[in-house]
Amino acid sequence: MSKKPKDPVASAPFDSPAHRVFAAAADFTLADVDPSSRPGYKGDKKSGGADLAVVGAALGELQERFFAASRAGAPHKVLLVLQGMDTSGKGGIMRHVIGAVDPQGVSHHAFKAPTAAEAKRDFLWRIARQLPKAGYIGVFDRSHYEDVLIHKVRELSPAEEIERRYGAINDFEANLVDKNTTVIKVMLHISKDEQRKRLAERLDREDKHWKFNPADIDERGLWDDYMGAYETAIQRTGTEAAPWFVVPADKKWYARLAVATLLREALEAIDPQWPAADFDVAEQRSRLARS
Amino acid sequence: MSKKPKDPVASAPFDSPAHRVFAAAADFTLADVDPSSRPGYKGDKKSGGADLAVVGAALGELQERFFAASRAGAPHKVLLVLQGMDTSGKGGIMRHVIGAVDPQGVSHHAFKAPTAAEAKRDFLWRIARQLPKAGYIGVFDRSHYEDVLIHKVRELSPAEEIERRYGAINDFEANLVDKNTTVIKVMLHISKDEQRKRLAERLDREDKHWKFNPADIDERGLWDDYMGAYETAIQRTGTEAAPWFVVPADKKWYARLAVATLLREALEAIDPQWPAADFDVAEQRSRLARS
Repeated sequence: MSKKPKDPVASAPFDSPAHRVFAAAADFTLADVDPSSRPGYKGDKKSGGADLAVVGAALGELQERFFAASRAGAPHKVLLVLQGMDTSGKGGIMRHVIGAVDPQGVSHHAFKAPTAAEAKRDFLWRIARQLPKAGYIGVFDRSHYEDVLIHKVRELSPAEEIERRYGAINDFEANLVDKNTTVIKVMLHISKDEQRKRLAERLDREDKHWKFNPADIDERGLWDDYMGAYETAIQRTGTEAAPWFVVPADKKWYARLAVATLLREALEAIDPQWPAADFDVAEQRSRLARS
Repeated sequence: MSKKPKDPVASAPFDSPAHRVFAAAADFTLADVDPSSRPGYKGDKKSGGADLAVVGAALGELQERFFAASRAGAPHKVLLVLQGMDTSGKGGIMRHVIGAVDPQGVSHHAFKAPTAAEAKRDFLWRIARQLPKAGYIGVFDRSHYEDVLIHKVRELSPAEEIERRYGAINDFEANLVDKNTTVIKVMLHISKDEQRKRLAERLDREDKHWKFNPADIDERGLWDDYMGAYETAIQRTGTEAAPWFVVPADKKWYARLAVATLLREALEAIDPQWPAADFDVAEQRSRLARS
């Protein structure tokens, strides 16, 4: 019933597989990624919207097959981890990419600052409680990576504890992969200028005020520290089993198309199959006709 | 910040408010509802699809405002309870109606047969654990009503316990309404003939086999008993605070449009407001410009 994942396949509209376009190599440096670029894609905003509809429809079909296969025992799960600075578009990915698949097959969780009870436990405790079950696409809006990002920048944990966490994360994720989870870690990479524009829009529009928090500007003041923390985290936790994908995100339409394509490739690699009937179809047809 | 819900308003495309079109009156009898009818709506399948897109977009906007208001303290929740015979279209409502709103603002739960641990508790225990939080649209795919439907038809509980449950449900739901939950209980009402067609399709298509269970035909054999149990449940638990809506569901497009409109009217009645800024906008603009 269950089968071993195949190698990921190339998929339009990118000119090479998205998981190769965005994967952060071992010698990765964040400065090499231009947030306003659109690697691997020749189209513009207009074609990007049309392509997202196509990829979203494909994703919806794959997700149904993925869910169906799990009902017959297929063990696979998908976990999408979304990280990025404030306004980088995590919510838009949820709405426009994850929104394209049946909500019944999605489990999502937004990780905020830990509660007092959570803070008493190991940082991975609350993460483990939100992992997707077989057949589900799990989405984390922020994640255990905050424990090596804001914790590093704001010195919320001692340096040696941060150091320990990189390894703990790698062990944790390797275990997830061993248990048939495809882990897709995405950094939505925006420029500091683009963030200014987006924060200004939140201040200019009354229907966006609720999304603005004065503390966002404090964090913005530590931009370079955050970029350093991201770079280190990606270098230390980008593994073959659970790679990081750094997606230029100054263009929202492009980032959405990229993440949708990464998800599609992950599901295509799993290659879920419709379960065979575990009943005699002819017999059931006959029962139905008499009922 | 929070405000008292207004009276529900009329909303296109129905020719009178959907909550009035579908509400089951005190003297309700199921035989009076033709599953193939489309009360209150003059259009056809084609216009129904177009209208659903319009209602879905309105719903999406209202939901965002609803969620935003809750971040500033508005206490309202919406709970949509979906009931209906197998193949009545509960999954389609999830996909096509609930799928129109931001997944970040939805909490949904499909209730299956209780686990051993759940069965040891009162029947409402597991229900209470899945209720939506402020700002969320909660959706129950089946619910506590199974405890007075299949439990009655299959005699899984003693008659006097079933009898007790109607009152317990009314108390439970009255309490939810007191705590600012709008409770929308929907029976998707299909005909026995339509169910035969839909089960036959599941048998005819390999990509639908996984949705078929031979036990569905056993339940179908008790059709009239189920209709009786639904009728009694609706008569006994249709209250002013938490009314039942019986939606003709032989036409999937119609049922989706109806439920989307019921949800829209519920959110319009709550009339959520964008939260006012709790910071000085000019001061933050100036901070942002300097950052």
